[in-house]
Amino acid sequence: MTWESIERLKTAAERNALAISEVKAAGRKVVGLYCLYSPAEIALAAGAVPVVLCGTRNDPIATAEQVLPRNLCPLIKSSFGFAMEGSCPYLSAADLVVADTTCDGKKKMFELLGEMKPVHLLHLPSTPGEEALPFWREQLSGLVKRVESDFGVTITDQNLADAIKLANRERRALKALMDLPQMEPAPVTGMQMLEMLFKLGFFADRETIIELAEGVVNEVQAAAKAGTLPERKGGPRILLTGVPVGMGSHKVVRLIEECGGQVVCMENCTGYKKADLVAETGDPLTALARRYLSTPCSVMAPNQGRFDLLEQLVANFRPHGVVDLTWQACHTYNVEAYKVRNFLRDKFDLPSLHIETDYSEADAEQLKVRIEAFLEMIG
Amino acid sequence: MTWESIERLKTAAERNALAISEVKAAGRKVVGLYCLYSPAEIALAAGAVPVVLCGTRNDPIATAEQVLPRNLCPLIKSSFGFAMEGSCPYLSAADLVVADTTCDGKKKMFELLGEMKPVHLLHLPSTPGEEALPFWREQLSGLVKRVESDFGVTITDQNLADAIKLANRERRALKALMDLPQMEPAPVTGMQMLEMLFKLGFFADRETIIELAEGVVNEVQAAAKAGTLPERKGGPRILLTGVPVGMGSHKVVRLIEECGGQVVCMENCTGYKKADLVAETGDPLTALARRYLSTPCSVMAPNQGRFDLLEQLVANFRPHGVVDLTWQACHTYNVEAYKVRNFLRDKFDLPSLHIETDYSEADAEQLKVRIEAFLEMIG
Repeated sequence: MTWESIERLKTAAERNALAISEVKAAGRKVVGLYCLYSPAEIALAAGAVPVVLCGTRNDPIATAEQVLPRNLCPLIKSSFGFAMEGSCPYLSAADLVVADTTCDGKKKMFELLGEMKPVHLLHLPSTPGEEALPFWREQLSGLVKRVESDFGVTITDQNLADAIKLANRERRALKALMDLPQMEPAPVTGMQMLEMLFKLGFFADRETIIELAEGVVNEVQAAAKAGTLPERKGGPRILLTGVPVGMGSHKVVRLIEECGGQVVCMENCTGYKKADLVAETGDPLTALARRYLSTPCSVMAPNQGRFDLLEQLVANFRPHGVVDLTWQACHTYNVEAYKVRNFLRDKFDLPSLHIETDYSEADAEQLKVRIEAFLEMIG
Repeated sequence: MTWESIERLKTAAERNALAISEVKAAGRKVVGLYCLYSPAEIALAAGAVPVVLCGTRNDPIATAEQVLPRNLCPLIKSSFGFAMEGSCPYLSAADLVVADTTCDGKKKMFELLGEMKPVHLLHLPSTPGEEALPFWREQLSGLVKRVESDFGVTITDQNLADAIKLANRERRALKALMDLPQMEPAPVTGMQMLEMLFKLGFFADRETIIELAEGVVNEVQAAAKAGTLPERKGGPRILLTGVPVGMGSHKVVRLIEECGGQVVCMENCTGYKKADLVAETGDPLTALARRYLSTPCSVMAPNQGRFDLLEQLVANFRPHGVVDLTWQACHTYNVEAYKVRNFLRDKFDLPSLHIETDYSEADAEQLKVRIEAFLEMIG
């Protein structure tokens, strides 16, 4: 099924790499971000352009393995391979890369990246509890100072508050988009949603992101209201949880839908982990610290937020099954998979399939057999 | 070559498991420790017995893999397997396990261990910098409160200061022991040193540890002075760096010495990372926080302390080559290996061999070939 607004988004996204070089040529600073723990608002507050960096393609991995171990998460190897090859236009444009000590592999990779690019490393605590908030706020404060010093600007509380409001508008637009598949059958496929969410990350202008996301929501909702939603076969509804995915690392989403399932929700950093708002009142840096620290990634020990989010998403998206995706050698998601399986079974009687894979197509046929069997079981 | 004092140590160690149950039967509390970031002094200050927990044998790993992923460091899987099987007498005796969020695998494993045993998790920052010190001191303060509450005791600053002095005496004794192989040829083998350091970790009484370590130092130094050191063929002197090793995970040390090398120093948590003293003046909890946070493990980003320590050890132990050992799937040591190799080559023109392995004997023959070739090259 095709939507005019989705085509518009995809066409607009084709200019993203060019747009970032134009923005840079016009004298604006560019801040590259790898991880959801790194607050885009600080770049926005500095009048700079925050942009997500590349890390979802398989082809730079061989290059990365000249320096990094093979037994490391493909996302980390891909990111580093892009940097070694100079093949990510957003990284090339970045005046500063904001990194954080999310996981073992990333924090050590960022040390090596720091020899190629200016990297500001945020030391992320391993607990989202209030006990860690002052330390994390100080880390964000250090980033504010670094951006001020590197870019020769002053970041006021008002700048931060304005940036929070803008980023929250974007979050609301993305959440409305991600909520569309609550309809049955879902009006957009998981692959369509993934492509949209992925491509929206590379726009230089936040208003464009908001406008494009709202355009899709409006078109779909209007069709639903008018009873003109295109016909669609509804297969088993699948909630995808676990590691982030993107174009180039979309294998499992593609396979689920090729096998007749519908990926209706992504509990990951590509998807729903982006949706939570930042408080718009009080000290803006504390609000940012609190919100970003509460991102329910498996690097937190324990990571209660993920189970709370899963509970909410199961209620809202009514999946028939859950696919829990772990990138190879991502220890935290891999170990947490045990708890996730038990939680879904004990609390919702919901079957789940844990998949550990990488970006390559080597295991695609084998995965297809497992996914088909899983869909048949729950179908 | 045999030393009476080493035989005495080994004989005494045979009673360790029994001793811990006697101590417990006598009403003393036992605190289990997995990692060098967890301060034994807090247990000592509470009048409890700190003891290292099991995690160096291969056989419990199959059990652990029922719950944990296969692609995880053998040390973590072994520790968890011991817990599942109830086969570590020290863990069985432990009233409280002190754990820390050292690395991705450990912090997530400790979540699961918490369902079996009372675990107090310390949130370790990823930087040894002063910026992290107040947060880390608060973590240690939280452990003091937990121990006070669980054991019904009060821990005063004087208790902590006394514990620091005792632990420092132990550190001085262990350092003197570890310094013996500065002699050429080394008067004790790497395997003998490893066995001593490993077994000393399981004694319930610190004075016994000090006495046994000093006994070996005194006997060897007396023989050196008297010119009665036993004859020993001196092969290439090897500095071992990287992950901790112990009895059961001693494969690489054994192979190096079977191939004619002498392991003269271990820059790891079994060896020299233990040696640094805690300041005996000022606020004791701050002194503990500063010292423990400065442990130069690869989980720190960056981990300058390791390079400083390597520089000092290269000067003092005069190795002909370095073996850098990484347990499979230990991402931080695995990524840091790249920097270590370059550092040793560029700074000291010192050849190094990076080995990634697990606790099994599956690759022993293959490793032997690589180690033989390395020793031949540097010999």
